[in-house]
Amino acid sequence: MLGVVDLDRIVVVLVRARNPSNIGAVARAMYDFGFSRLRVVNEFAPPLEAAKSAVDASDVIAAAQSCASVAEAVADCTLVVGTTAVGERDLQHELFTLAEAAPRIRAELSRHNPAPEQDALADAPPATARNVALLFGSEKTGLSNEELSHCNWLMTIPMHEHTGRKHASMNLGQAAAVCLYELVRDDSRAQVPLAPDAASAPASAAQLERVTELLREVMQQTEYTRRHAHNCSPDHVRRLVRRMGADAVDAPVWIGILKQVLWKLGGKP
Amino acid sequence: MLGVVDLDRIVVVLVRARNPSNIGAVARAMYDFGFSRLRVVNEFAPPLEAAKSAVDASDVIAAAQSCASVAEAVADCTLVVGTTAVGERDLQHELFTLAEAAPRIRAELSRHNPAPEQDALADAPPATARNVALLFGSEKTGLSNEELSHCNWLMTIPMHEHTGRKHASMNLGQAAAVCLYELVRDDSRAQVPLAPDAASAPASAAQLERVTELLREVMQQTEYTRRHAHNCSPDHVRRLVRRMGADAVDAPVWIGILKQVLWKLGGKP
Repeated sequence: MLGVVDLDRIVVVLVRARNPSNIGAVARAMYDFGFSRLRVVNEFAPPLEAAKSAVDASDVIAAAQSCASVAEAVADCTLVVGTTAVGERDLQHELFTLAEAAPRIRAELSRHNPAPEQDALADAPPATARNVALLFGSEKTGLSNEELSHCNWLMTIPMHEHTGRKHASMNLGQAAAVCLYELVRDDSRAQVPLAPDAASAPASAAQLERVTELLREVMQQTEYTRRHAHNCSPDHVRRLVRRMGADAVDAPVWIGILKQVLWKLGGKP
Repeated sequence: MLGVVDLDRIVVVLVRARNPSNIGAVARAMYDFGFSRLRVVNEFAPPLEAAKSAVDASDVIAAAQSCASVAEAVADCTLVVGTTAVGERDLQHELFTLAEAAPRIRAELSRHNPAPEQDALADAPPATARNVALLFGSEKTGLSNEELSHCNWLMTIPMHEHTGRKHASMNLGQAAAVCLYELVRDDSRAQVPLAPDAASAPASAAQLERVTELLREVMQQTEYTRRHAHNCSPDHVRRLVRRMGADAVDAPVWIGILKQVLWKLGGKP
């Protein structure tokens, strides 16, 4: 399970993404699932200001970093995971499905770098937390072999195999949303309040019996019993009412409706 | 895990989606994960031909059906699941996270309606396979209470709680991608045992809608509506009927009883 601090140690790296609306969509998915660190690797200045699809995600866009190279973008990460559509190229890496990859990523985040010893090299990282980079390639070509070479291993979102489809690939914003969802998926249960009616008490047997009596009376007075005799034994009607599964709130409503029917029919409820 | 046949029995229903590129994005996610049945509920002709973001998904768009109402769009489904952002409105339904909901949906698809007996009621459905509808609301407002009232229960994609963000909601195309991913995600941990009533087919949405209509007519004609106005909105009655949980055998019985009441009252059922 990932805490807020852990989410801050996942770095989403977009490599050569060209469509501003896709960058915005990735930022929005990050915001939706609680991620904040976006880095963009582009030869040209990335069109971040034009990422208009980033509804609510302006903080993510504002804090996004531009990097000149993949190496720079992943420099402070201890695990670099590339995303790929299977079959895109000859893979030189270990490949996991997203569902297999997520626990590996969470495990990495749960580890800490040991504190540097006193006579440690000056280059040793002072940070104790570990960062993980998730690399997404360009919309058109994915990650190049050079870009993949920065990765420890690869993950893929399993897709349906359509006959004749050569290069399966997802929309960048959708792929990012699915990946980030999977990373926080184990948290799901805690964040959703109980259904409002989970506490609703079942109807008492007395209430259901009252519904049964009234329903039988309605069946009699409307001559349903005469037409459909096989449905109308007391046991039949009782089971029909029990199968309704009415709760303590609905049962009085049904009782009220049936009494009203009998009143209108001129009987004596 | 879902097979190809099962995927064909999931119906994605977009209600009042206005942005063609979002419709296209949903179609693309469906194609990516192997789903094919898209229905669009719009007052105006849906701009399907303009769904240009549907890369590779032209088959899904071409086969998409336009429906005049939610009731029509879900009529042949035995389970109708609404999607919602938590906190969007006062929920009247049971709510599950996506990860909790997926095994329930898979379980429904694994069941078959028993073949009707020779002397079965004429209203009993002949179909043996069960369809499940997934409802997605408009980009701006989600599903209305009336639209939600067609649902058996709701599911939500858990999102990060940002301070000050009032109405969390995901991009429609991303939300659909995440939901469909979860449905085909192979997760042996999340198996749900078959319910003990596996032999009994649930009522179709069309049957329950017929019960709803007849019950409202009975409420009107008996003046229940006048006395208990707060219970009688179409949404209220629809939810009351959905909570009955009638199956394919009981639903025609209820329809018969209500029609008989109306006949006796002198109305025209």
